[in-house]
Amino acid sequence: MSLDLLKERLGEIADLKHAEMLADWDSRTFMPPEGAEARADVIATLTRITHERVVADELGEVLDELEGTEDATDAALVRVTRRDWERARHVPAELAAELAHAAGVAVAAWDKAKAASDFDSFVPHLERQLELKRRYIECFPETPVAYDVLLDEYEEGMTTAEVQRVFDRLKEVLLPLISDHADGGPSLEGPFPLEQQHEANRLVLEAFGYDPSKWRLDETPHPFASKPGVGDIRLTTHTDAAELTSLFSTMHEFGHGVYEFDIDARLARTPLARGTSSAIHESQSRTWENLVGRSRGFWRWFYPRLQPLFPDALGSVDEERFVRAVSAIRPGPIRGDADEATYGLHIILRFELEQELLAGTLAVRDLPQAWNARMQEYLGVEVPDDARGVLQDMHWSIGYFGYFPTYQLGNILSVQIWEAARSELGDVEEQFARGEFSQLREWLREHIYRHGSIYPPRELLRRVTGSELDPEPYLQYLQTKFA
Amino acid sequence: MSLDLLKERLGEIADLKHAEMLADWDSRTFMPPEGAEARADVIATLTRITHERVVADELGEVLDELEGTEDATDAALVRVTRRDWERARHVPAELAAELAHAAGVAVAAWDKAKAASDFDSFVPHLERQLELKRRYIECFPETPVAYDVLLDEYEEGMTTAEVQRVFDRLKEVLLPLISDHADGGPSLEGPFPLEQQHEANRLVLEAFGYDPSKWRLDETPHPFASKPGVGDIRLTTHTDAAELTSLFSTMHEFGHGVYEFDIDARLARTPLARGTSSAIHESQSRTWENLVGRSRGFWRWFYPRLQPLFPDALGSVDEERFVRAVSAIRPGPIRGDADEATYGLHIILRFELEQELLAGTLAVRDLPQAWNARMQEYLGVEVPDDARGVLQDMHWSIGYFGYFPTYQLGNILSVQIWEAARSELGDVEEQFARGEFSQLREWLREHIYRHGSIYPPRELLRRVTGSELDPEPYLQYLQTKFA
Repeated sequence: MSLDLLKERLGEIADLKHAEMLADWDSRTFMPPEGAEARADVIATLTRITHERVVADELGEVLDELEGTEDATDAALVRVTRRDWERARHVPAELAAELAHAAGVAVAAWDKAKAASDFDSFVPHLERQLELKRRYIECFPETPVAYDVLLDEYEEGMTTAEVQRVFDRLKEVLLPLISDHADGGPSLEGPFPLEQQHEANRLVLEAFGYDPSKWRLDETPHPFASKPGVGDIRLTTHTDAAELTSLFSTMHEFGHGVYEFDIDARLARTPLARGTSSAIHESQSRTWENLVGRSRGFWRWFYPRLQPLFPDALGSVDEERFVRAVSAIRPGPIRGDADEATYGLHIILRFELEQELLAGTLAVRDLPQAWNARMQEYLGVEVPDDARGVLQDMHWSIGYFGYFPTYQLGNILSVQIWEAARSELGDVEEQFARGEFSQLREWLREHIYRHGSIYPPRELLRRVTGSELDPEPYLQYLQTKFA
Repeated sequence: MSLDLLKERLGEIADLKHAEMLADWDSRTFMPPEGAEARADVIATLTRITHERVVADELGEVLDELEGTEDATDAALVRVTRRDWERARHVPAELAAELAHAAGVAVAAWDKAKAASDFDSFVPHLERQLELKRRYIECFPETPVAYDVLLDEYEEGMTTAEVQRVFDRLKEVLLPLISDHADGGPSLEGPFPLEQQHEANRLVLEAFGYDPSKWRLDETPHPFASKPGVGDIRLTTHTDAAELTSLFSTMHEFGHGVYEFDIDARLARTPLARGTSSAIHESQSRTWENLVGRSRGFWRWFYPRLQPLFPDALGSVDEERFVRAVSAIRPGPIRGDADEATYGLHIILRFELEQELLAGTLAVRDLPQAWNARMQEYLGVEVPDDARGVLQDMHWSIGYFGYFPTYQLGNILSVQIWEAARSELGDVEEQFARGEFSQLREWLREHIYRHGSIYPPRELLRRVTGSELDPEPYLQYLQTKFA
């Protein structure tokens, strides 16, 4: 009886979140720009109502009654719901709604600021986000390290100290690796007409198992994936005729999409029907983007299909040269376009700067200067303008502080999981070379995707790999590939 | 203080309705088909939560406190909110959610049934809708005529008897008019390539005053207009290379869109920020589709722009022939494609059949036969299949019984309002011939659009035209045009 009541309440909350996800997806794909203010109201109201329902006393009472339940899935449901309930009880509904509303307004401001490379116009929005985020952190006085409050939201149980330790180790290896091997390799020259890029995206997605009756792919300035309901996966990509990057971004978002898509249907409309953490999620996007999408096996199959789509740009580029071009270490200002080796330093820079911003040791006005100096220090890159510098990512506009580290943790996890998969499946690249990806996808579905949030991230990692978070396999992978 | 509280509550309700409108718009434009079941859950939950908020005791108390308020707009807000509150208090939240959920499921079933022209598969859904609608009607025992309950929802104060009287008068004139003049006139032969149809739609919308920073136009099987927020107008159209109908459907939806768009910003996030009734709304869609879009003045301006877009189909068709072709009386099975003279009979047929279905005197299984017989009787049309017969409209799948009559009332009102406009503005077709539509739009904005729902439909009509609902000007217009 209590379980039915719990599921009814959680179903309603899931529906509200789906409505909010759709409102967000739409605002980033099809909404006319002048709809932003009204949309911020909608999202704020949905957030407030969802929040009120998540923190309801009744929910806490039902959870108490269900404590110690036998069934493993039901016990996981109680555990995850209690975690959500307890976190949300710390935060007043008004603050939750203010955060949501400010995000809606700031993301529109960010969009304009980025288009005009006008950081000044974004300053008040970023200051407002930081102020709200500090108020949010104050809601968790029992957590001694402020930044831990934010990390834990995206990555259950992760601490600033652990991230710091892992990132310090990365720096040790990445800085010399990059400075030794950043001569780049061959580069590709466009144009890559958009129609043909869409065709390339379609071919790859279909081989990966994309079904148009359940998925979409649309254009957006800053790609993301969303699931506004079961059987409804929305990928987005960004095409630019000068570069072939949309293919990698599409494979990246496919990784997010397939994780959500392959969650067991029996978990639908509960908090278990989502990926278990941001880093595990990112590990899957990076798996499909890099470990699959930048592998030699993948290109053995796909290059003969891609090359004829772009006769002008690729007619005289052979497969070997192409693979070296898309795998080369080539330091640049944009995180989203970064190669596998430099990517981590883009994240470490953000991890450092956002801690300083939150602590107040770095003023928002001074951020571009600090950003540009650190890009020079870590990657030897001259930032051409703020649009390609501090304004390149939307995350801070929507209050996603503490999120960036999970991207890099995801890279690390992706290799740990990849090794476990290969130890069971053997030479998957042999299959990729034939355009076959189903065995890998099925393995990932069985071991990771179908479980949704049943296992917390550390436990899932242990079940899949037998180990804890460990940067060494990832560093070994990079050294083998690049050194 | 009460007024602030009222506006806060109404703002929240408006946000929930905007979220629901977006979910509905998306389900009819971009949603992957397999998302329908989850979307029905989302819409049902939003409907239930909205309903709970609309019927709140607190809202009733605030309305009591504000009774007799001096300010005219605030008084209108109290009046309209009370009407919504009282109607909603009649209906249990569970039934409201069931209606919404069944609509979500049935519209997907209708979509498939129509595609396959398979009425049998739609039967259980239509029966379910009728059962729910009968339960809904039972919630209003003080209304003696069942169908009046439904009419009043879309058209405040309208009665079955009044519609019957007006429709009887229409039949008297329309049946002989059609049988005397249905020789058709010239017809147009495609193909009309879709790209060029989109271009034609764009040209017309821009001349009418469509601003892409605040409006969208997308493809859908069954066109509609929606406003999921201030500054965010969504039109839809349906293009078919065999026919030029999307242009008229686009102008039709523009009429709905501009009414919503031009509502005073100060009414935003209140129930006054919507058109005052379905028939007034339809009067505006029909104004832009027919009184503007099928006028000789309009084509004087637009035909020289349209003709070069379709050199194969229109190269040898002169303006005179084209105007006769798009204005001719040509009885056919499809309401959405119907000419101005036959349109009314499509509506009268539905008005009659849905009363019989609701009363139980016509069984759902027997509906196609009854439909086809009446099409033969009124229009001499042989219905080729159920897809182009009883399954052509989505309305019944979403429970819109009682809605169809407002289309035809809208036609009647459009001519009454048009005559008032012309008596002040003079020869507007002269302006159309120069591609100028702003004077008409401004007049309509001033007299109708900006007021939103401040005036009930009858009062608005009186203010604008000085008269009551009267079919004679409309019949006169048709006789002048066709006889």
